[in-house]
Amino acid sequence: MVIIQQRSWKQKLEQKQRRVESVSHLVNGSIIPTEKIVDALELLIKPGDRVVLEGNNQKQASFLSQSLVLVDPEKVHDLHMIMSSVSRPEHLDLFDEGIAKRIDLSYAGPQSMRIAQMIEDGRLVLGDLHTYIELYGRLFVDLTPNVVLVAADKADRHGNLYTGPNTEETPTIVEAAAFSDGIVIAQVNEIVDELPRVDIPNSWVDFIVEADHPYELEPLFTRDPRHITDIQILQAMMCIRGIYEKHSVQSLNHGIGFNTAAIELLLPSYGEKLGLKGKICKNWVLNPHPTLIPAIESGWAESIYCFGGELGMEKYVEARRDVFFTGKDGSMRSNRTLAQLAGQYAADLFIGSTLQMDAYGNSSTVTKGRVAGYGGAPNMGHNPGGRRHSTEAWYNMMTSTDELARGKKLVVQVAETYQDANTPVFVERLDAVDVKKQANLAVAPVMIYAEDITHVVTEEGIAYLYKTDSPAERREMIASIAGVTPLGMEHDVKQTQQLRDRGLVALPEDLNIQRGEANRSLLAAKNIDELVQWSGGLYEPPAKFKSW
Amino acid sequence: MVIIQQRSWKQKLEQKQRRVESVSHLVNGSIIPTEKIVDALELLIKPGDRVVLEGNNQKQASFLSQSLVLVDPEKVHDLHMIMSSVSRPEHLDLFDEGIAKRIDLSYAGPQSMRIAQMIEDGRLVLGDLHTYIELYGRLFVDLTPNVVLVAADKADRHGNLYTGPNTEETPTIVEAAAFSDGIVIAQVNEIVDELPRVDIPNSWVDFIVEADHPYELEPLFTRDPRHITDIQILQAMMCIRGIYEKHSVQSLNHGIGFNTAAIELLLPSYGEKLGLKGKICKNWVLNPHPTLIPAIESGWAESIYCFGGELGMEKYVEARRDVFFTGKDGSMRSNRTLAQLAGQYAADLFIGSTLQMDAYGNSSTVTKGRVAGYGGAPNMGHNPGGRRHSTEAWYNMMTSTDELARGKKLVVQVAETYQDANTPVFVERLDAVDVKKQANLAVAPVMIYAEDITHVVTEEGIAYLYKTDSPAERREMIASIAGVTPLGMEHDVKQTQQLRDRGLVALPEDLNIQRGEANRSLLAAKNIDELVQWSGGLYEPPAKFKSW
Repeated sequence: MVIIQQRSWKQKLEQKQRRVESVSHLVNGSIIPTEKIVDALELLIKPGDRVVLEGNNQKQASFLSQSLVLVDPEKVHDLHMIMSSVSRPEHLDLFDEGIAKRIDLSYAGPQSMRIAQMIEDGRLVLGDLHTYIELYGRLFVDLTPNVVLVAADKADRHGNLYTGPNTEETPTIVEAAAFSDGIVIAQVNEIVDELPRVDIPNSWVDFIVEADHPYELEPLFTRDPRHITDIQILQAMMCIRGIYEKHSVQSLNHGIGFNTAAIELLLPSYGEKLGLKGKICKNWVLNPHPTLIPAIESGWAESIYCFGGELGMEKYVEARRDVFFTGKDGSMRSNRTLAQLAGQYAADLFIGSTLQMDAYGNSSTVTKGRVAGYGGAPNMGHNPGGRRHSTEAWYNMMTSTDELARGKKLVVQVAETYQDANTPVFVERLDAVDVKKQANLAVAPVMIYAEDITHVVTEEGIAYLYKTDSPAERREMIASIAGVTPLGMEHDVKQTQQLRDRGLVALPEDLNIQRGEANRSLLAAKNIDELVQWSGGLYEPPAKFKSW
Repeated sequence: MVIIQQRSWKQKLEQKQRRVESVSHLVNGSIIPTEKIVDALELLIKPGDRVVLEGNNQKQASFLSQSLVLVDPEKVHDLHMIMSSVSRPEHLDLFDEGIAKRIDLSYAGPQSMRIAQMIEDGRLVLGDLHTYIELYGRLFVDLTPNVVLVAADKADRHGNLYTGPNTEETPTIVEAAAFSDGIVIAQVNEIVDELPRVDIPNSWVDFIVEADHPYELEPLFTRDPRHITDIQILQAMMCIRGIYEKHSVQSLNHGIGFNTAAIELLLPSYGEKLGLKGKICKNWVLNPHPTLIPAIESGWAESIYCFGGELGMEKYVEARRDVFFTGKDGSMRSNRTLAQLAGQYAADLFIGSTLQMDAYGNSSTVTKGRVAGYGGAPNMGHNPGGRRHSTEAWYNMMTSTDELARGKKLVVQVAETYQDANTPVFVERLDAVDVKKQANLAVAPVMIYAEDITHVVTEEGIAYLYKTDSPAERREMIASIAGVTPLGMEHDVKQTQQLRDRGLVALPEDLNIQRGEANRSLLAAKNIDELVQWSGGLYEPPAKFKSW
């Protein structure tokens, strides 16, 4: 019965060895000279390869992406790109140049219109949209990479890497290639004799190259408090009283945005007045938002675990190491994979905002003419069915008396009823349904499904969606806080009063919030300069945020 | 408004430095002499500390656990233990000795009766049960560790670690302490001048200690084909035809057990006859099961990503590196965290078995008098709400025509209708409901919830639960394959025929399987010796599995 097959079981290794050998005339040990990078890429990458190109929200392997777009399409073509974030023009130029053909991605915010057009024109084949860790998971299953291109701060001459605070996804995508006979190439800002610490051991790295300029780093999580509106402050007050305090939220993730920045800046003022310090918002999973500085300084945050760094926050974070996760060398270590896990499984609450929501609570940032993807939102903005431990807030979401009943993650969406004067957020049908056809997707690109949302907050009030399973009732609840959108017009004051009486909806007055109180005077810092002051000068905002 | 607080923001670091300083008379750089380990632990660990002690399914930091139980409870007490697996007697002796008080865990199979008794007697406070990555997530949120105790194969004199194939959870739990000013102590089998590769850099490690004997390693995933029964073979045939082939399952996770071992051993025989090679079961997330060897040798597996290693499989895995994930040095690298992610988000199917299932499909391995926990099953055995990419099998689970409809992960439970002559698997009410009260848990310890299960397989047939949302219909479907259990007796042949006609249930004959064909002659290997032969002598089974 036993058949011994005659085949090599090291074909991937042999192929890798041939490729590595083919650049021996260009390299100096594991170092690729800066000016030889295009030549090296042409030899190390083969047509049809699966190539992971590091592009996080913030950190970009920009030297490598700019070099990849310069390879000869006669030599390197039909690449299958795998990128968590499509952020830079050359990421899509690769397709226009005929170097790449197919892409699997998580987020394409800055390039979302162009990518939609390229899909429609047949110049790019979209594999699928993913949440971050879903894409990382596939690197170990059906999308094992041939080549991985990453960015780090420094390398030593042995090829060990130091990523500094912007560790982000680098270790995970490197691991996928390093242990499947893929080729790992790291661009670094400098090669040094000794590293502050090792983030990725040289056993996992094949080549390093000193970039001609430091990797691009976007201060994506910086929100200037000057732009926070009174309406956002009203919504933030409702969140603090009507959700965080009500359900005793201890651990949480805040998305990017002025809504959550307003919450952060109200904790040391409004939150303090309510006597909530030490009772809510203790353990955070989020990037080092500058707008968190006053809350940290006031002693609100016990711990903050980060997906990535934030430009200008490096010294502040180092000086607050009881709160942030830092290495022996003093600088922060982030980890996108572990932070997504922590946000998924170990946080009471996720709060974010959306561009569109339908009448039942399904929401998406994918709107007509844009294929944006969603980054981490689907992962942290759903009720993790595998969660088994209980916390007060989670348990508080339990509405059934069934003997197998359990709690639920709090998933909050904050939105003003209109995106702008003519564009209601609440719609009968998500644009995502049309984008599904346009981009030839298997299913509509919904960011957060109705079944997962527990609370919707608008300038009108809060809908406690977790309290009902009835779609009709959910629609009524959302309508009651949908203002003068078409959906909101379905509802009248009497119906709203009934929902308020039943505790399904709360208006500001139900939470003891006077609309008139909601103004910018409540913000613990009103501009970037005040954030710098709170930080004792440790926060060093990028120039574009300096107005003084 | 700005208040400058007078406080140190490096209290954790200062505390760590004091502890490290306190052992300076015992240690040699970062090396703790073997015979000094108890003295060192007494100084490095303080009362009330959160201590992560590595205990995976397989690899155990056994020297450190045996040493910890020897510390003076006057000096070290009230510890809060965090352990993914409670496997060894001394793990619970810690509580009897008054050294530890509270525990958070994922799995306690071998100690499940004792732990239940200790909870009831008040000798141990159970924090909560978790799935693995849920527990890891909390290490970065509300359970940051003071001390982490791990096991590795080798260290060099600088403190870099080599874990070999049994990387398992070590990097994740080390990362949690290394970047929150916790103390990391690694036991190693030997200290060498040069490591085969670096799995964990010394920047993350504080102390290493050479163990007096190699860490314990359990061959937990080895199943001797001799013990596979004809009924298990029948069930395996049904799984292959009625699930894997029907839904075109490409990527999958197999749990531990004879049921899944039977499937693995039928692929090169029964699966081959059906012409399924290259069409199903290509990308695997599971440990290196010896029973997979014939399928690998026959060319069924394109890739296998592992949570951990398996004793005796080391050389075989090294020699099959196109399939397994291996490092430059040649040996495998596993990673429990990433494998759980891959299994959660990137696999079409999870298949496992259970001790109890209720009439609606809720199942648990937590039965009366046992607090077993569940390991990874809740994570891989649920429909991940954050998944956004589509595969054929996933899409195949879609039953609605709603424009936002999506697919579902396949979650299969295989069970014989009776655990033994007197114990039906199908029950009206799970024991977990009573254990909830007994162990003072917030919710009943359900392993897999009804809403997540898509298929149940017994020796009678398959219930395609994903096809209905109606609890009453689910009950009927389960009853129709529940044999002569009380639940099964609710059902009659006529009702079953109706369910078969509607495609909700399939009996073997509906799948063209003759019950008489289902016998051991179909197994590609009938015993361990034949597995060794298939492997060309590369598989080296532990002595207890050798019968020749």
